[in-house]
Amino acid sequence: MMKLVECIPNFSVSRERDEAAFNALVETAQAVAGCTVLDVQSDGTHNRCVFTLVGSPEGIGEAAFRLAKRAMEVIDMTKHQGAHPRMGATDVIPFVPTMDMTVEECVELSRQVAQRIWEELGIPSFLYEESATAPGRVNLAKIRKGQFEGMPEKLLEPEWAPDFGQRKIHPTAGIIAIGARMPLVAFNVNLDTDNVEIAKSIAKAIRGSSGGFRYCKAIGLLLEDRNVAQVSMNMVNYEGTPLYYAYEMIRALADRWGVRIIGTELVGLTPAKALIDCAEYYLKLENFDCHKQVMEYHLVGME
Amino acid sequence: MMKLVECIPNFSVSRERDEAAFNALVETAQAVAGCTVLDVQSDGTHNRCVFTLVGSPEGIGEAAFRLAKRAMEVIDMTKHQGAHPRMGATDVIPFVPTMDMTVEECVELSRQVAQRIWEELGIPSFLYEESATAPGRVNLAKIRKGQFEGMPEKLLEPEWAPDFGQRKIHPTAGIIAIGARMPLVAFNVNLDTDNVEIAKSIAKAIRGSSGGFRYCKAIGLLLEDRNVAQVSMNMVNYEGTPLYYAYEMIRALADRWGVRIIGTELVGLTPAKALIDCAEYYLKLENFDCHKQVMEYHLVGME
Repeated sequence: MMKLVECIPNFSVSRERDEAAFNALVETAQAVAGCTVLDVQSDGTHNRCVFTLVGSPEGIGEAAFRLAKRAMEVIDMTKHQGAHPRMGATDVIPFVPTMDMTVEECVELSRQVAQRIWEELGIPSFLYEESATAPGRVNLAKIRKGQFEGMPEKLLEPEWAPDFGQRKIHPTAGIIAIGARMPLVAFNVNLDTDNVEIAKSIAKAIRGSSGGFRYCKAIGLLLEDRNVAQVSMNMVNYEGTPLYYAYEMIRALADRWGVRIIGTELVGLTPAKALIDCAEYYLKLENFDCHKQVMEYHLVGME
Repeated sequence: MMKLVECIPNFSVSRERDEAAFNALVETAQAVAGCTVLDVQSDGTHNRCVFTLVGSPEGIGEAAFRLAKRAMEVIDMTKHQGAHPRMGATDVIPFVPTMDMTVEECVELSRQVAQRIWEELGIPSFLYEESATAPGRVNLAKIRKGQFEGMPEKLLEPEWAPDFGQRKIHPTAGIIAIGARMPLVAFNVNLDTDNVEIAKSIAKAIRGSSGGFRYCKAIGLLLEDRNVAQVSMNMVNYEGTPLYYAYEMIRALADRWGVRIIGTELVGLTPAKALIDCAEYYLKLENFDCHKQVMEYHLVGME
């Protein structure tokens, strides 16, 4: 059993616009024991950077706290400009379970970090996604609506008291959304038609918001370079709604129009288990224990 | 890129019959830097034990050498008895590529280790499987035929000069088979029939030896407790012959008899990629790069 947690904190600063502040964050993350920096992305137009960290729950909790402290020191939100919606110097801190960690353990970790950030730094926070304390707080876009500039007023509305802290943002660091979520798998399915209406109709049928799969978000669009209609999905919990549910349902729905699936794609990183679960389904595996039988699960964290 | 190699050395001793010698081997393996002992199996009837080691090529090469030396010191083959065929104190040392290691790199490693064992310990060896220097030396059973007692005579036959060492076994440690091979995946397919002849006929059709898939070994048998006919396979190179080749071909052949696949099973450890390749096929993934896009590949070997 190797408990690993992924953390993808977003900060309202970019290498392109403030290299010193950006570097300060990178150095802070790299200095934490039990935390490995897998990736750092920076976007000047958004004026935002995104870290991908992985490590032990203790190491990642410490890294999230130290990064929030450093971001408070080097970023002044009263002067921030950028295309991406934001409400804090540290804008959002998601914790994602990996390997033998559960999402419940990530919820607990998110609460501990939010509490420490409030007590030691005086920065308030909302808990979101799996950590949310009310249905209206699950969705990040709803929480962040109004952005940094509108937050002082929003926090005074009855339903918008922060989960940690008082009804008052930190003057320069704003407020943070902190929470646990499952890894997101970006999965697209291409159809042998250029009729985007078919893709849109299928997307509507399979997405949770309109009666489809609970953990599937979907839109239909046209890949203009290939003249191919695509169902583009975010699978936000591949254990609750496996990839093959989406694939098989799209196949069944497309069949009504005489349309076939010509290919699919995964964008970015995917947990091995999201794919292994598909192999298990299509190969009709019996009594298969991914954690015990897949060799790589024994290698991770090896000394 | 994290080069990892697995090594599964077999020794002609068991915890059940000689605990001191067995423990000496365990302690030797555990003391090597860059080598992790994943598993140790011992069988008193076979009077044999099997180590599963994983680590860097350097660490594993060192571990294989030190274990061969220790086995030479604590095992006397002139007194060995056991049900399993054997020809040496260290009987066989397979190197198996894992993660970013290739089978060619494992062949090179096997040659280095075999040379060092000859030069420093005076124990000769045959190279087998992917490391074999002649077609007649690929198969371990053919090499080991005659066993420890018959080896002095066998080595004098024209075609049986060792790859390293002279035509003479080590007096108490015998001779070793050393080589590289792909990980073996034990994959069984169950049919909705109790007619074992159908399973045997399908096994014959799909195995490489009779014209089927090159890297598939298969037999047909009856699971007596379930009254179910099974095609039982060893997939000896899942990259050359993927699991879904076997599954789809068995499905097509069974269809001729009006028989369906009711389930399958994987026995023991499987590399993630053997299953991810199946998901890639069944989901029709385009432009998928397992090493870049599967998160766990970035976690292995992480500090």
